[in-house]
Amino acid sequence: MSEQRWVRLSTEEPTSTVCVLGTEMSLDVCGAAPSGATAFDVWGTSGVNLYIIHNGEVLKIPSCVPKWPLDCKVEVVVTMDQPSAEVNEDKVRISYYKDNGRTPMAKALLHLTCVEISLDADTNRSGTVQRRAKNKKNWTWGPEGKGAILLVNCDRDEPQDKMDNEDKKLESFLDRRDMSLMILTTRGPEDIFEDHQLVLHVSASDADKVGVFHAQGKRKKLSQHTHVLGHGKSSYVVEPSCDEEEHHFYVEGLAFPDIGFSGLVTFHATLLEATAKALPEAPIFNDTVVFRVAPWIMTPNTLQPITVYVCSIKGNADFVVEISKLSKKAGCRLIICPEAENRGDRWIQDEMEIGYTQAPHKSFPVVFDSPRKRELDGFPYKAVLGPDFGYVTRKAEGKGNSVSTLDSFGNLEVSPPVTVRGKEYPLGRVIIGSALPMPHGDKMVKVVRDFLYAQEVQSPIELYSAWLLVGHVDEFMCFVPASDRKGFRLLLASPSRCYKLLKEKEQEGYGDAMMFDGLGKDDKEISITAILADKSLRSINEYCQKCIDWNRDLLKEELELEEEDIIDIPQLFTRSSYSPSKAVAYFPDIVNMLVLGKYLGIPKPFGPIIHEQCCLEEEVRRLLEPLGLSCTFIDDYETYHKDLGEVHCGTNVRRKAFSFKWWNMTP
Amino acid sequence: MSEQRWVRLSTEEPTSTVCVLGTEMSLDVCGAAPSGATAFDVWGTSGVNLYIIHNGEVLKIPSCVPKWPLDCKVEVVVTMDQPSAEVNEDKVRISYYKDNGRTPMAKALLHLTCVEISLDADTNRSGTVQRRAKNKKNWTWGPEGKGAILLVNCDRDEPQDKMDNEDKKLESFLDRRDMSLMILTTRGPEDIFEDHQLVLHVSASDADKVGVFHAQGKRKKLSQHTHVLGHGKSSYVVEPSCDEEEHHFYVEGLAFPDIGFSGLVTFHATLLEATAKALPEAPIFNDTVVFRVAPWIMTPNTLQPITVYVCSIKGNADFVVEISKLSKKAGCRLIICPEAENRGDRWIQDEMEIGYTQAPHKSFPVVFDSPRKRELDGFPYKAVLGPDFGYVTRKAEGKGNSVSTLDSFGNLEVSPPVTVRGKEYPLGRVIIGSALPMPHGDKMVKVVRDFLYAQEVQSPIELYSAWLLVGHVDEFMCFVPASDRKGFRLLLASPSRCYKLLKEKEQEGYGDAMMFDGLGKDDKEISITAILADKSLRSINEYCQKCIDWNRDLLKEELELEEEDIIDIPQLFTRSSYSPSKAVAYFPDIVNMLVLGKYLGIPKPFGPIIHEQCCLEEEVRRLLEPLGLSCTFIDDYETYHKDLGEVHCGTNVRRKAFSFKWWNMTP
Repeated sequence: MSEQRWVRLSTEEPTSTVCVLGTEMSLDVCGAAPSGATAFDVWGTSGVNLYIIHNGEVLKIPSCVPKWPLDCKVEVVVTMDQPSAEVNEDKVRISYYKDNGRTPMAKALLHLTCVEISLDADTNRSGTVQRRAKNKKNWTWGPEGKGAILLVNCDRDEPQDKMDNEDKKLESFLDRRDMSLMILTTRGPEDIFEDHQLVLHVSASDADKVGVFHAQGKRKKLSQHTHVLGHGKSSYVVEPSCDEEEHHFYVEGLAFPDIGFSGLVTFHATLLEATAKALPEAPIFNDTVVFRVAPWIMTPNTLQPITVYVCSIKGNADFVVEISKLSKKAGCRLIICPEAENRGDRWIQDEMEIGYTQAPHKSFPVVFDSPRKRELDGFPYKAVLGPDFGYVTRKAEGKGNSVSTLDSFGNLEVSPPVTVRGKEYPLGRVIIGSALPMPHGDKMVKVVRDFLYAQEVQSPIELYSAWLLVGHVDEFMCFVPASDRKGFRLLLASPSRCYKLLKEKEQEGYGDAMMFDGLGKDDKEISITAILADKSLRSINEYCQKCIDWNRDLLKEELELEEEDIIDIPQLFTRSSYSPSKAVAYFPDIVNMLVLGKYLGIPKPFGPIIHEQCCLEEEVRRLLEPLGLSCTFIDDYETYHKDLGEVHCGTNVRRKAFSFKWWNMTP
Repeated sequence: MSEQRWVRLSTEEPTSTVCVLGTEMSLDVCGAAPSGATAFDVWGTSGVNLYIIHNGEVLKIPSCVPKWPLDCKVEVVVTMDQPSAEVNEDKVRISYYKDNGRTPMAKALLHLTCVEISLDADTNRSGTVQRRAKNKKNWTWGPEGKGAILLVNCDRDEPQDKMDNEDKKLESFLDRRDMSLMILTTRGPEDIFEDHQLVLHVSASDADKVGVFHAQGKRKKLSQHTHVLGHGKSSYVVEPSCDEEEHHFYVEGLAFPDIGFSGLVTFHATLLEATAKALPEAPIFNDTVVFRVAPWIMTPNTLQPITVYVCSIKGNADFVVEISKLSKKAGCRLIICPEAENRGDRWIQDEMEIGYTQAPHKSFPVVFDSPRKRELDGFPYKAVLGPDFGYVTRKAEGKGNSVSTLDSFGNLEVSPPVTVRGKEYPLGRVIIGSALPMPHGDKMVKVVRDFLYAQEVQSPIELYSAWLLVGHVDEFMCFVPASDRKGFRLLLASPSRCYKLLKEKEQEGYGDAMMFDGLGKDDKEISITAILADKSLRSINEYCQKCIDWNRDLLKEELELEEEDIIDIPQLFTRSSYSPSKAVAYFPDIVNMLVLGKYLGIPKPFGPIIHEQCCLEEEVRRLLEPLGLSCTFIDDYETYHKDLGEVHCGTNVRRKAFSFKWWNMTP
């Protein structure tokens, strides 16, 4: 609202009003002037500052000019410096004169009471409430940006309860720590509230986006927290309290930004003045503070891993042991989802994506539960959600929202931070896979895409992944950390590279070396020469290479990568026996790896053995070890590869949050 | 998509591909190199331009350097300058060498066919399609901005038909003129389409926002226009045509920007290359063009009036005659809505708001039909919608959307252009009225507010209007044109000003002059002295003045107005007999006037007659005539005022569009 208020005067009887600390009052000197008056003077008690604005000049009163011409261009402005001790403590008097008369024709007396009213939050993002900030109405991005931040209170601090943003209860101080403090300061004589009312409110459309608790009483015990706004309630009359000059409100977000909700929520404190009997109050002052609901943020492979998730299923004990060893090396905690919970569904990568949300005062991880409906469906809500571990999901419902394989979160990745033609993406860019633009081409469901775009801070890129039977981006790409260049490399599955390698091996005289040697399945084995001679295999791989190259060009453009930022990893694909126009990995899909810092858990490719070494493993080591990466090849053939997934599909990782704060970027 | 494409080579057999005019191909020289090769050279036919990028330097081939080290840091880039006449017309050859060998170890031969593919629209907003523009992917605001514009085809060029955006038909060239032309140019040897496919597509979520017609045949007769995209269809395979290098598409918007729809719609033309049998095509090139759907724009009182609307009802013949005379003076056409259509509902201001929409090639007026449900409900659709006269509405349905009096469009106004603390609003700002932030406070329905905010170009201001029984902003404010200052004045109803005027008249000895004199109703008449003595009347007017002053401060702030931009117009309010806590005009509400250029149709206030002149009329003339305005006082007492409306409520105006084009601003 305006920081200058127009105040009417009367020469018939004294009038009185409230002056809010920090605002200006402009007096309607002309409006109250008696006819015939041509000049006026101004006098005030010691508590008021009086200014005359005349021809653009500001003069403080008393000044050397005793009288002023009665002219709309002469403005009288009043400010006050501290809250009054009593109602109507200060006064301003305007005296009106005719021509050169020395006795006033009439006088207008205005009684003033100064009150302080300020609605404050952590608008400078320091972690504590900033008092009496200016420009609280706007929320701006960037290191110089201003504006408070709210967390979606999507964790569950009390076991067995609902999620914290699903109810109107505040049951622990742990829960309160997820909320943002907002302070409404009211200082001034208490009697002023006999004929004034203070209302805290949000717009009706924001009332389902936030919850507000009012902490009352001197000790602000848990039981003294009342739910006052949100869940439909859009206004709250703040009762004056004799022993408190500060009202403490705790604010929680109920919903992440999404289509139709920018994330901005505006709170107003409005002072209403009682008027005549049987008439409503009239508004005289408004203070406003804007919060932005913190987005859900994904963590790329370059961030330090904290926890690894894997499913224990029938027959995968060795695999779990390997993942366990690797996690230990990388200093991660391992969480094994038992068979009772996964009911044979091993694809924990597809079920969820663990990101985080962050405000200056608090940050916690948040699991995004995919719309996929398989046996692991209940796991994120039942076993991942908890104290300071949030949960969010989007249900695929209604037209255009039927779930496909593209909705599994193996098809949802994020790049490391990049700068693209001068535009910075300090939190990287979300990567999702889609179909070709043809009729009936599947896509990730709209509700998920809308959600991802609405977070704003990791501007998504859509790749073409539906050439694969499973159709996930993690089947052909992966980011690994590197200490040089941009801090990472993009690994891309490459049939060309694989053919080139095999061709070289043949030329070196190893054409008889057998692929799938070591797998213990003689019928599967096939020589390098036979692979090279298989025209059908070559043609699908040429097709796959074209599809990957399309994505390669797109990633180079959208992440501004150079050739040296990309490593082509030898890989062959083959036609799916279910759907011959779609591709699946011919041997375990190397890029579908688990990245735990420098430790890589790589699907063991079972390539031709030359000099007692798998030539594919050797090539991968040759490409990756110079970057300081440690390659561990894990046999996932029987329990994962044969079911069309690999190590990455069968694991999930919670990583550290970025040290970069999202509000310091500019989307 | 990327403007650089990564192209694989083979030393085993010649490969071939398409080079799209205007793009670069980067050759994977290293990937195809035989083992042992250490250097290479490049040769090409005359149709290709070859470049070596080495240590950041770009060298055109042939250059003085005959051979290049085989190193990933040496890049070979190919461009072509014109479409090929035949498939595989041009060639590039890479020869690989070992150490200082003079005979190549191997050669990779690439056959090239250059085609031109360009998807173009009026991206520079000149009114005609701009060919081969760069950066068509982004849409930017401002005089230097780029990006094409679509109109919502919301008129009805064929009488008796549906609205033009409601069906998939193109029935006249008049209809086609509302659409934006988009041209897909394809030049190159026709045979290339034997194994390539060109697809025009939009994202699935945009498929209900646009309609696209493909104009085929040399003569492009009306019957040769096929509906190919939109109304759910999101992709269209463009068949090559032997006699056309240009495919003409006509694009119409189906929906205005709204919550969840920014107005941006992206079209892609993707070239797909056939690969092996029984495998899908692979994408190799994509051209993209972005359109923005033009917003709905309101016209302030400062714009030239074209048409005036009024209802003919029982007893208002004199009123209609007065409006007719005024319209004639102002050079406007008058449209009288007959009783058969209005069924006694005279409030044509409340039923609709006439604005316009605009693209560089076309502009037309658009009536926004309010969610109000009264007898005039069918009028905008039946009688205003027509050829080059569009229609839009928002229905109040579902939770939080029940219609109140605040949804009438007397409560929807727009300011003239303003600049506020450096921010320009060259199309003014929308003004709507709301309730106080109290429980159960009504508001304009969300669907209408969302629509108004989503238009972006006239950033709305919400005032407090619900202190009035009817609750419309046009009951206390009005803008009139002025040749000085900002080009306008804001008129505000002012009880203070009225009391001051009456007091002066009493002091001048006219205390016995009667209000409502001349109305011909003796029982209504009341003297100035009696009005001044009525304490109850004074108290409600003090309350009303406070409510108006709240809005006054807000308008000063949000439009950056100075006192001299505002004229207080004497007015009194009284308690409504229906709802004593709400206000209604005590005498005909002066600011509720019809503004037709300099001609004002003002409700005749029936104020006290002094020296044979109504002192209120005299005061209004004194305030407004110096601005060059012509005041005509119109008696609306019996047929409008008594039913709680006045001249403005009973009329509506279509005005000329702004000469300023909306895309030249920055919201």
